[in-house]
Amino acid sequence: MPLSVRPAATEQLRRQNTALLLRRLRADGPTSRAELAHATGLAKATVSTIVGDLQQRGVVRDGQARSRPDAEPRLGRPGRPVELAGGHLVALGLEVNVDYVAATAIDLAGRTVLLSRQSLDPGDSPLAHVTSLAQASLDRLTGDRAQVLGVAVAVPGLVDHTAGLVVTAPNLGWHDLPLRERLQEQLPAGCALRVDNDANVAAVAEATWGAARGCSPVLYLTGTVGLGAGLVVDGSLHRGAAGFAGEVGHAPIGGSDEPCACGRRGCWETTVGLSATLRAAGITTDPTAPHGDPVEAAAEVARLAEQDDGVAAALGKVARSLASGVVTLVSVLDPQAVVLGGYFVPLGPWLLPVVQRALADEVLAASSRRCTVVLSSLGLHAASLGAAADVLADVFSGEIAVV
Amino acid sequence: MPLSVRPAATEQLRRQNTALLLRRLRADGPTSRAELAHATGLAKATVSTIVGDLQQRGVVRDGQARSRPDAEPRLGRPGRPVELAGGHLVALGLEVNVDYVAATAIDLAGRTVLLSRQSLDPGDSPLAHVTSLAQASLDRLTGDRAQVLGVAVAVPGLVDHTAGLVVTAPNLGWHDLPLRERLQEQLPAGCALRVDNDANVAAVAEATWGAARGCSPVLYLTGTVGLGAGLVVDGSLHRGAAGFAGEVGHAPIGGSDEPCACGRRGCWETTVGLSATLRAAGITTDPTAPHGDPVEAAAEVARLAEQDDGVAAALGKVARSLASGVVTLVSVLDPQAVVLGGYFVPLGPWLLPVVQRALADEVLAASSRRCTVVLSSLGLHAASLGAAADVLADVFSGEIAVV
Repeated sequence: MPLSVRPAATEQLRRQNTALLLRRLRADGPTSRAELAHATGLAKATVSTIVGDLQQRGVVRDGQARSRPDAEPRLGRPGRPVELAGGHLVALGLEVNVDYVAATAIDLAGRTVLLSRQSLDPGDSPLAHVTSLAQASLDRLTGDRAQVLGVAVAVPGLVDHTAGLVVTAPNLGWHDLPLRERLQEQLPAGCALRVDNDANVAAVAEATWGAARGCSPVLYLTGTVGLGAGLVVDGSLHRGAAGFAGEVGHAPIGGSDEPCACGRRGCWETTVGLSATLRAAGITTDPTAPHGDPVEAAAEVARLAEQDDGVAAALGKVARSLASGVVTLVSVLDPQAVVLGGYFVPLGPWLLPVVQRALADEVLAASSRRCTVVLSSLGLHAASLGAAADVLADVFSGEIAVV
Repeated sequence: MPLSVRPAATEQLRRQNTALLLRRLRADGPTSRAELAHATGLAKATVSTIVGDLQQRGVVRDGQARSRPDAEPRLGRPGRPVELAGGHLVALGLEVNVDYVAATAIDLAGRTVLLSRQSLDPGDSPLAHVTSLAQASLDRLTGDRAQVLGVAVAVPGLVDHTAGLVVTAPNLGWHDLPLRERLQEQLPAGCALRVDNDANVAAVAEATWGAARGCSPVLYLTGTVGLGAGLVVDGSLHRGAAGFAGEVGHAPIGGSDEPCACGRRGCWETTVGLSATLRAAGITTDPTAPHGDPVEAAAEVARLAEQDDGVAAALGKVARSLASGVVTLVSVLDPQAVVLGGYFVPLGPWLLPVVQRALADEVLAASSRRCTVVLSSLGLHAASLGAAADVLADVFSGEIAVV
């Protein structure tokens, strides 16, 4: 008794089933059609049709049967396994920040196929530079015969993900900037483009490939010019209702009463942002002075702190405010791992012990928790890698169709 | 070509598929077997076998075909729909607190079948009272020929959910209490028992049936003797790595430096807990004095505040500290709704406007957010209802088998 359904609903179901099979192949590696049907509950005929289409499209290919020491003996002829191929299907992630722009492209199996970063000089336009980096990256990828599934741009600010709008990025001076529209004009037609918050997507990268791989939940906390946070639970980003989750820089955290560039007082950024740290270390007195690459600026602070007790003491105060905020965030979120990224990384020797001690002493039932604090291993590429991963997430969830 | 698989794996898959069908029936109401197969991608034979077993067990029953104005015309004879029945399958939720114990039971379709609450007198043992309430509730349910799928107990403290252990509940004076074991001894054999954090499960209830129904994420913030918070995202609780998420009462939030009963300074509870409010209102000077039912105690404060400007001013300070903390939590979590529960409800007229104004004035890009603050509509039954719902969640996820 055939059901008459709308083509859109059939198409939707087919996408879901395709995504289900892709997720299984990503998780399990080479797998036979019969095993795929068994593992997903889909009919064998459905699996065969979809796998055939994926194979024709180059998304999957014949794989080697793995020896499975824990497998049960099977009856009958074992099916030939298929595995994810998709080296020519790539996602491009970009990051635009105050002091640098970055690009990372990864293929469907998660392999990095492009990596690029440029420091900006004072007066450079971040928008112009990220646009030309996007163009150059797309040229290189298409020159390599890759097909770009989508492009995502990570921004240090509040982003309306659906509209592709930067609602506010205080440190870039952007307000209600239709970034997707602006970039779309400069890029080849048909290239899906999205805009993301930098800390959110960097959190995904750290949880998937970085210092917190295998942990959940993961709280990523990054310091560049401002502060940002991202929370990843079982591989999925906690975006919040408007996509603004993790906006910790301008929250009353860390016990400060300092005036902030945003017009409020007591924002966490006023005590642990990069500018605050440079001022505390006596490197600059101007909160709006450009300071080039944040990691290099922080490395300079670390060098000074080794020689100058005053700088070391100033870093101690920064560490204390950072620790107080992390205690609050860990109490609220109970992450398994806290990753400190951005400019916090070169300052790790000064910051990490203070944060770790505060977690042990000040969080309720600390000894029954499983929370570790680690430094980012992806550095300033975390956001662009995470942006690319966010595009791939849509492939594996069925939002973006590959066949 | 049959696959030889372990019975455990087959049983696991069958449970998953059963849960998948139950979830569809809960979401869609009366549905035919053919529609179920179509909607889930399961084979029709699989659907028929599972539905047959569910029907025999009384979990589903023949339903009325609904008229669906948006449905496409169908070819062939329409299948007879089935729907969730399960009125005799119930989950029992209990709450133990400093000043009261409560019980709520709901059936598989989410209907409340039992509701009970007792205030405790000073010197009463909360453990003894929750045990006798559990026994009385089970007697009544089994007398009504209900089958109890599981029992959950909500506790105002940090809970090791897996071990059924209360790690610490400072206001009850419980530390490393094996609550599940203690209760299990007093209850009929074979009754699955779990222990939950009160605010976490209350958050689920508020998101499912209460003031924040239809919103996501939902942040629930409750004041009883202490403070607790719970975050529900798309119907699922954010528990955290150790199950301790939402432990806001002893975090350095709200800008206080007061000493706390837990031995720390500056815990949020010291400025917005019930004891702090009663002290601020001049009702008591003893932070450990018992105060009976928290909602009645707060209603008394509300009455005083209407007559006494000093009490109203004290409530203003409580409201300010509550608002400051909510600003931080909203910045971090970006909820669509914040629900204030417990003793905050009778004080709503004093607290709500201050919190709402702070969210509008102090959260970055407040006008682009969709965050509303509301008072709990479930009152002191939120936690026991949420505990019962948490048991049902395991039925719909396949953790608890019904056939």
